Amino acid sequence: MNNFYYQIPTEIFFGKGQIEQLEKEIPKYGNKVLLVYGGGSIKRMGLYQAIYAIFARIGVEVTELPGVEPNPRIETVRAGVELCRKNAIEVIIAAGGGSTIDCAKVISAGANYAGDSWDIVTGAAPVTETLPVLAILTLAATGSEMDRFAVISNMKTNDKLGAFSPLFYPKVSILDPEYTFTVPKNQTAAGTADIMSHIFEHYFNNVQGAYVQNRLAEGLLKTCIHYGPIAYNEPENYEARANLMWVSSLAIDGITWRGNDVATSVHPMEHELSAYYDITHGVGLAILTPHWMKYVLNDKTLDRFVEYGVNVWGIDPALDKFAIAGKAIEKTADFFRALEIPATLREVGIDDAHLEIMAEKAAKGMKKAFYPLTSHDVLNIFRAAL
Amino acid sequence: MNNFYYQIPTEIFFGKGQIEQLEKEIPKYGNKVLLVYGGGSIKRMGLYQAIYAIFARIGVEVTELPGVEPNPRIETVRAGVELCRKNAIEVIIAAGGGSTIDCAKVISAGANYAGDSWDIVTGAAPVTETLPVLAILTLAATGSEMDRFAVISNMKTNDKLGAFSPLFYPKVSILDPEYTFTVPKNQTAAGTADIMSHIFEHYFNNVQGAYVQNRLAEGLLKTCIHYGPIAYNEPENYEARANLMWVSSLAIDGITWRGNDVATSVHPMEHELSAYYDITHGVGLAILTPHWMKYVLNDKTLDRFVEYGVNVWGIDPALDKFAIAGKAIEKTADFFRALEIPATLREVGIDDAHLEIMAEKAAKGMKKAFYPLTSHDVLNIFRAAL
Repeated sequence: MNNFYYQIPTEIFFGKGQIEQLEKEIPKYGNKVLLVYGGGSIKRMGLYQAIYAIFARIGVEVTELPGVEPNPRIETVRAGVELCRKNAIEVIIAAGGGSTIDCAKVISAGANYAGDSWDIVTGAAPVTETLPVLAILTLAATGSEMDRFAVISNMKTNDKLGAFSPLFYPKVSILDPEYTFTVPKNQTAAGTADIMSHIFEHYFNNVQGAYVQNRLAEGLLKTCIHYGPIAYNEPENYEARANLMWVSSLAIDGITWRGNDVATSVHPMEHELSAYYDITHGVGLAILTPHWMKYVLNDKTLDRFVEYGVNVWGIDPALDKFAIAGKAIEKTADFFRALEIPATLREVGIDDAHLEIMAEKAAKGMKKAFYPLTSHDVLNIFRAAL
Repeated sequence: MNNFYYQIPTEIFFGKGQIEQLEKEIPKYGNKVLLVYGGGSIKRMGLYQAIYAIFARIGVEVTELPGVEPNPRIETVRAGVELCRKNAIEVIIAAGGGSTIDCAKVISAGANYAGDSWDIVTGAAPVTETLPVLAILTLAATGSEMDRFAVISNMKTNDKLGAFSPLFYPKVSILDPEYTFTVPKNQTAAGTADIMSHIFEHYFNNVQGAYVQNRLAEGLLKTCIHYGPIAYNEPENYEARANLMWVSSLAIDGITWRGNDVATSVHPMEHELSAYYDITHGVGLAILTPHWMKYVLNDKTLDRFVEYGVNVWGIDPALDKFAIAGKAIEKTADFFRALEIPATLREVGIDDAHLEIMAEKAAKGMKKAFYPLTSHDVLNIFRAAL
């Protein structure tokens, strides 16, 4: 097990009706609020109205930044930073999925940085001061509600980059599973794939003796496998939505990773797909994952795949090891297929036009990967996934 | 899944050499230090000397409270409170196992309370202000290093009571598995039983749909079962000590419990054994647990025992359900026996002299138990364990 530091400062209020906590939480941080959200879904589900009812009760000054994109753009961050400056914003409330929360995080840092906010995303400008962010989650997927990461896209340069800072943790996150009842089937499926991919990125690693982390990862994966299809078929199943929501938060920045390596492989590959084609992140991950698994399976990586097959999928441990690994990969692909996620890049409009440049850029982010991939390897995986 | 609040404020520094973090951590909290510890083990392993080397470098004023008992006494708490007042202590450093840390926690509250510290333990006096506690863990067992609980004994009244407060979280905990290399075999065994019992107290509950919490609990239990015997037989096996240490912290106050019930059953029973006979807490838990399991196994509780047998012990799910449950209980008893923990109350010097009064007191703490026990039930379990 690696040495590690562990602390998650975010306060989580989980469950039905927890939105009411905002009434006492907002005044702790300020009175001038920037409300960040995406499309109209928070209005359709009544969340927007519930937030404004609380605003009215505590009497805050509200500025709005609506329209955050599914892959949030640096232009939207810049607009948010402008609003913060113009209106002396004291606290940012992000109501939405990971994109909205990520956008709010970078705005929270940009508001205190004189230069261009893209410098924060690239890491050129260190994050030294942020406005407090309170998050209200409406999609179980990225884990942004309880982590220190933010991913922002610059479509002009085809860059989709992840920034991180200990100051990026939301101060408070409201996790009410009922807000995910209206998540469409395809987003439920993509969110589940995103959560599972976060777990895979830690689970498939080369650290010796991070045993407890791996057993916990298996527990989270089993939960996704159990409840992903239930939430897909019964959108208002509270139990399924609750489990997926809490797994999304636990999957990314804590118990499976501390003491373990972040041996990220599939995320850097997918970020290139999104940066060039603006596809849904979780869909890209689901398409690539089985192909990545097949590509990196060999004598050295075999044992972890066997653990995965036996402990997560319940495959008979008496079988030949490569047979177990092969079955586990097949079950992973079948699972995504059962959630009706596209299985090839062509199905989401990606042809071979940019594969080489995307492979080149993706390979740069894989120095610590479970199985280090060159741009040539990434290109092979992209081609297999076409 | 129940609604819940989740935040663990303690900063964890985990791994080899992390003691050095104290050099920057202590000055954040103060300059006048109370060093709380137990017997001489921290001197034999060189930890005491390492702490004093840091004290010398940063120049603190040190007061010592040595001699904290394995079941820490209220008299020791009172002595610590006196020292805090006399020397205007600003920060408490607890170096030891759960007993030492628990003692430090109640001292930290007592220092700011004009009355008798026992009021804090009973809950008669609310905890409103505490001195910061920094913990250095030397035994994987209670989880006190990352929780808000403290258990203190009053041998005059034969009371062993648990106090809790959000202010009881240590500010910082140093978790270096090497400090547990010298833990004797019997304490390693008892510590493992204590960790497992904490997990059982949440795992065996009646909450519907706390699926992810239960899968995580199983991962923690599997880690104890895998590494308990390794640490027992190879005391300097870093991997085993590291996994047990981190499980001890994760087991008690977070991922298995939030959203779930604390359906405590065996702990209240054991607390009476310790209060009357001053036995090792983990030993009492290991003796009682299989008898408790047998007693509460019935049609209604069967399914959870089947989950336990299949998911934790790998018992064939095709077997008859009661056969699975029975085997799981047997394996639990065998596991404790393999760690050479006494299997009967008589072996630890307990006869039937106080069984009835202990049963009476224990039954009061079980209102939310998985299977509510009357004093008559508890007496039956005590008798079965004699």
